[in-house]
Amino acid sequence: MRTLPGFRDFFPEDCARRNYITGTWRRVARTFGFSEYDGPTLESLDLYRKKNSGGEILGQLFSFTDKGDREVALRPEMTPTVARMLIAKAREFRKPIRWFSIAPFFRYEKQQKGRLREFLQFNCDLVGDDSPEADAEMLALLIETLRAFGLTSDDIVVRVSDRRVWMDFLAERGVKDEAQAREALAVIDKLEREPREVLEAKLSPFGLTLGGIETFLAEAKPEFFGRLQRNLAARGLEDFCVLDLRIVRGLAYYTGLVFEVFDRRQENRAVAGGGRFDRLLSDLSGGKVNLPAIGFGMGDVVLGDLLGERPDAKSRMDSSVKADLACDVFVVVADEARRAEALGVVQLLRATGRRVDYPLTADKVGRQFKDADASGAPVAIIVGQEWPRLRVKDLKTRMESELAQAALADWAANLQTPAP
Amino acid sequence: MRTLPGFRDFFPEDCARRNYITGTWRRVARTFGFSEYDGPTLESLDLYRKKNSGGEILGQLFSFTDKGDREVALRPEMTPTVARMLIAKAREFRKPIRWFSIAPFFRYEKQQKGRLREFLQFNCDLVGDDSPEADAEMLALLIETLRAFGLTSDDIVVRVSDRRVWMDFLAERGVKDEAQAREALAVIDKLEREPREVLEAKLSPFGLTLGGIETFLAEAKPEFFGRLQRNLAARGLEDFCVLDLRIVRGLAYYTGLVFEVFDRRQENRAVAGGGRFDRLLSDLSGGKVNLPAIGFGMGDVVLGDLLGERPDAKSRMDSSVKADLACDVFVVVADEARRAEALGVVQLLRATGRRVDYPLTADKVGRQFKDADASGAPVAIIVGQEWPRLRVKDLKTRMESELAQAALADWAANLQTPAP
Repeated sequence: MRTLPGFRDFFPEDCARRNYITGTWRRVARTFGFSEYDGPTLESLDLYRKKNSGGEILGQLFSFTDKGDREVALRPEMTPTVARMLIAKAREFRKPIRWFSIAPFFRYEKQQKGRLREFLQFNCDLVGDDSPEADAEMLALLIETLRAFGLTSDDIVVRVSDRRVWMDFLAERGVKDEAQAREALAVIDKLEREPREVLEAKLSPFGLTLGGIETFLAEAKPEFFGRLQRNLAARGLEDFCVLDLRIVRGLAYYTGLVFEVFDRRQENRAVAGGGRFDRLLSDLSGGKVNLPAIGFGMGDVVLGDLLGERPDAKSRMDSSVKADLACDVFVVVADEARRAEALGVVQLLRATGRRVDYPLTADKVGRQFKDADASGAPVAIIVGQEWPRLRVKDLKTRMESELAQAALADWAANLQTPAP
Repeated sequence: MRTLPGFRDFFPEDCARRNYITGTWRRVARTFGFSEYDGPTLESLDLYRKKNSGGEILGQLFSFTDKGDREVALRPEMTPTVARMLIAKAREFRKPIRWFSIAPFFRYEKQQKGRLREFLQFNCDLVGDDSPEADAEMLALLIETLRAFGLTSDDIVVRVSDRRVWMDFLAERGVKDEAQAREALAVIDKLEREPREVLEAKLSPFGLTLGGIETFLAEAKPEFFGRLQRNLAARGLEDFCVLDLRIVRGLAYYTGLVFEVFDRRQENRAVAGGGRFDRLLSDLSGGKVNLPAIGFGMGDVVLGDLLGERPDAKSRMDSSVKADLACDVFVVVADEARRAEALGVVQLLRATGRRVDYPLTADKVGRQFKDADASGAPVAIIVGQEWPRLRVKDLKTRMESELAQAALADWAANLQTPAP
């Protein structure tokens, strides 16, 4: 028996690595005043048909008919769920709404580096504010999240663009119809991925040329980017962003700022991406809820690969994993006649929040110390004939000292390892 | 658009309640030296067919055929997954293996109180030790988990039984064949739920009478229970357990100790349940991995209902939720000319781990203070014309004091609200 292709088992070390990633996401989002939300893993298939975020996702759905004859799907992305939730209750929350979630998603993808069929994604949305300052706040959250993993502006870059710049460009060249403009953007989205001849052929129906677009890309100095950078500079984060109008994002619903985070070496797929979608809630609610929004998503797979490749980020992750798996104290039962007292010691230490291991049944003291070392605990408490006096052994220096049982709680409170 | 029946949206308050439950589970399991693991949400359908844990679960599966023509199912329980993982890698881990997981599960159940179609479950397993001390350790973990929510022995009771006691009872009465004995146990499992006549009729093929069983239930004093209670007494936890041989658990794979946790008032379904399954890993691995094991599961739905009904537990949960949603500091921009400096203050406070909100765009100071109150922050930092001097306003007492910008980091480190 094995996992299905594209699905993962998380043994303790894998799970500690996963929790390091999700814990860092959660911690940074909270410093930005974001509140966590979640939705169900399974949704009505209609939710994805309606939003029609792009044919690619619809084609990758894990969808089926349930025992109640409903067409359902494992969620492939968070935006339709959060849109549904916002439409139901947006008026109950103070604006701007700052929400994040950390949840598993499912897409039937071809197996390849950076792509799994079940993955975790960090989704952040700021709703009810369409200002450039809201854009900057979201980019700051994105950058701070990556910095919290030990990634620097030498490791990653946020490529920033704005669909409005392209809409103006297209309108000036006669592509004024919105549906047509969106189709033209879909071609521009492929600038880095398709051969020149193909691009030329696809652009010509819109009256556009590849040369014209390349000139625009080289020369455009849109005002929005300077304003964004001034805001980020006030936070010391201006080194992370570059203007790159080649970014337009595949999804049809973006209306303004769009961005993607890449490895500076461009060896991996995008680490994160997002943008402004000021009309989606209105469109989905038939005009009932008219709130602008900006959001981004960051998956755990490409990010995890990147963290493993960068020495500083990797050593930070590895220490977190090691600390996560280690015990704080190992209680050695040196005299079986004192097992009940030893259980009392274990109980007391655990009540202070310490992580405690001990031998469940009688065992030679030498073997207990081997287990103590293997547990990762920096210190052992020895319960033996000296009761109610205890011995404390530093498992690194092998130095021993005495401790009265009555002083145990104070001792635990002052342990070097951080209390949870 | 709505959630599917039996599925939940978690708005921030719901999510904070969920995180309180999962965070408490995780914290207590860690004090017992348990390591977190997880498996995939979707598994091969065969995994559940093979273990054959009971027809009920197989009938409630969300199963379907994926785009690669594989029969798959959303996981309805953790035991088959953890058994698969242990069989693959048990030899790499120090024994006993102490593992826990917190994950969503899916069962197509009839809608009723305490039952949803997607729910979270806390699963703990201790593998590689078949001693009564291992049994006691698992019951201690179960009880400590419930105590961490503020539940006392007046609120809950662990009804403890042992299948070996029943196997001996049945063998003495001539039911020696194991398959037959298991069928008899399935009848005894229904003692509290079926009418006397039905039970009599079902027992007679085994040569058993309801009267005989009731006498046994009243008079049996199995040795295991005294030993268990002595171990728990050494930890101060003896008030939580009662011997109750009516508990036999529906699943076929249990081989020894079995237990269920109930509300003392018996108003809710079981809060948790588990038992020893010493042959499951061997059976599933064809004898390759022969490790005894004991485990339990606790869902979030019945537990959440119970916590909401008990005043002490509820107020503990409510304070946690309130603290989880509140900001630590609100930064008031009293002078728009100092917005860049205010962003620097926001950035610095967030870097210390504080949760910070501020107005994204220019706003009247009076309205900013209203937002500050709504954010739940106990304190506001005011950035204005006095820069680089700041004002600090206690939002409860409305008292103001001065603070030099250079002293801000120290001030944040000493804030009353607990740093994360």
